Amino acid sequence: MEKENQQKLQSTSNVHLTKPIRCIVKLGGSAITCKNELETINEENLKTVSRQLRQTMMVSDSSCGKVLGMDWSKRPGFTETSCVVDDFCDQPALDFSHFMVVHGAGSFGHFQASKSGVHKGGLSRLLVKAGFVATRISVTSLNLEIVRALARGTNLVTKMPLFGQIASADVSMVAKAIDSGFVPVMHGDAVFDAAQACTILSGDVIIRHLAEQFKPEFVVFLTDVLGVYDRPPTEPNAVLLREIEVREDGSWSVVKPTLENMNKRVEITVAAHDTTGGMETKISEAAAIAKLGIDVYIVKAATSHSLRALSGELKDNIPEDWLGTVIRFLR
Amino acid sequence: MEKENQQKLQSTSNVHLTKPIRCIVKLGGSAITCKNELETINEENLKTVSRQLRQTMMVSDSSCGKVLGMDWSKRPGFTETSCVVDDFCDQPALDFSHFMVVHGAGSFGHFQASKSGVHKGGLSRLLVKAGFVATRISVTSLNLEIVRALARGTNLVTKMPLFGQIASADVSMVAKAIDSGFVPVMHGDAVFDAAQACTILSGDVIIRHLAEQFKPEFVVFLTDVLGVYDRPPTEPNAVLLREIEVREDGSWSVVKPTLENMNKRVEITVAAHDTTGGMETKISEAAAIAKLGIDVYIVKAATSHSLRALSGELKDNIPEDWLGTVIRFLR
Repeated sequence: MEKENQQKLQSTSNVHLTKPIRCIVKLGGSAITCKNELETINEENLKTVSRQLRQTMMVSDSSCGKVLGMDWSKRPGFTETSCVVDDFCDQPALDFSHFMVVHGAGSFGHFQASKSGVHKGGLSRLLVKAGFVATRISVTSLNLEIVRALARGTNLVTKMPLFGQIASADVSMVAKAIDSGFVPVMHGDAVFDAAQACTILSGDVIIRHLAEQFKPEFVVFLTDVLGVYDRPPTEPNAVLLREIEVREDGSWSVVKPTLENMNKRVEITVAAHDTTGGMETKISEAAAIAKLGIDVYIVKAATSHSLRALSGELKDNIPEDWLGTVIRFLR
Repeated sequence: MEKENQQKLQSTSNVHLTKPIRCIVKLGGSAITCKNELETINEENLKTVSRQLRQTMMVSDSSCGKVLGMDWSKRPGFTETSCVVDDFCDQPALDFSHFMVVHGAGSFGHFQASKSGVHKGGLSRLLVKAGFVATRISVTSLNLEIVRALARGTNLVTKMPLFGQIASADVSMVAKAIDSGFVPVMHGDAVFDAAQACTILSGDVIIRHLAEQFKPEFVVFLTDVLGVYDRPPTEPNAVLLREIEVREDGSWSVVKPTLENMNKRVEITVAAHDTTGGMETKISEAAAIAKLGIDVYIVKAATSHSLRALSGELKDNIPEDWLGTVIRFLR
């Protein structure tokens, strides 16, 4: 973790919102991109995720089912915009729960970061400098497409990222965006670092900081597998961990399933090209959030399970037929 | 001007750089986009501007003439990236003058802003909210393409924008980027506003704030005409104003040409769709910069005249064959 970032954020006083945050959603890089195809978005998943977000954010759908898009820009292959100004004129303000969105990089950014070693620092080297720029370009191009997809697929107002780097994050501006009725969309990126000049800040770390500042009701991590497994999910006997409890000291253990001979130590695999720590970072960040008393759900994106997690119905009771991992503070 | 922004910026102490800023460059929206074709970049101009920037920023070209691109992302129509990692390995750090770049919106953003009236404020209306998002999406997509073009066309390191809105601008982060050897690229956008909830912040206003904070040697506005004229340049008898002097009280007058019967009051035309004030804003912002003792050159982009302005050769003496407008403080 970056020292400077921590300091800056700790010195920020807690934010005050007119209405609390219901949910912080992480769109996992593996869920919204095709992880093994360079800079390729998983359009199908992104579309479904946008629809599910719209569905679960709306308190009352006053738009009579009509989705008014907020992306009025030309799309590749089209010469005209999809502006529907007239449709907006009679629309009342929408009532919706406050969500925040953070997305990962997936097949964007990782290639550029690992090729140049941005995560290891050293901006005096021209290669690292170039990689820093290349990483930011790649991740920003993904962010633009995600914001456009969210803006097209919802008639909830979605916002451009207020910051690409947590060190310069003016949390009060994020709060202002939320209070003005926007859904901030943020992401991990190559950032400056006090100790090693530059590093990679992961979306999972951003989520934890936002959770500390904004105290949402719950946090949802959307991934490409059903949840956290006891070993790499591609292995034949991998067991989905349904419930993980976090203790006061930050340690955590699996409470469900309670198989007697199950090795409770979860095997962690980190993909070689993953410069942000992969599942290990995810669990420790999730545990840190759970320690705040905020339930964390890790669930497969664009499924009925993710829809249930986003809707908040898991808060009091986890149904037997819900597949995913809940990480909770042991009270 | 937005009150909150002014306050925030005035309270910022002057920045300290290890090396002064040589030039702040404005890439005018009309110079880098096709103004009457919705969301269309003027690729030819952008390419030439990138080349001129590279040429004038370099102190010593140690790269043996080889341009090492910093954009390693896929380009539309290509399946592979143009990554040239090996070429970077033996490269020494480059010595270059510190530049900052701010770009306008041209045919990006203006359509969305004027359709929704974002510049008039009122975020409680759904149309304005949607326009706010749509404007930011459009302008950000232009910014991404400009940064990519600059990163491709130069082996100087170019940076993503550190802020989209001056209210949240942490000027010290911009200074850090510069001291780390990057060229920050910033732009006007739809922003929050204390008085009317939202407004449009123009690139010209950003330039003035940056000039106040960073005190560059000179400022260059690249436009689509030779400079400032006494009337709309499309009119047959329009005269190019070569030199404008700014007085202590902020008023300004034309000192060259000194035609006796010339109406020194410049006619200002503001295009109906231009939500950021057009030429009037440009001149008053330029006058405010000149008042700081910083020469301002308004010149046609991608010409021999812009190259001379960017190179700094106009500082002491304006050659007779140079076409453009100089705005200077009358000492």
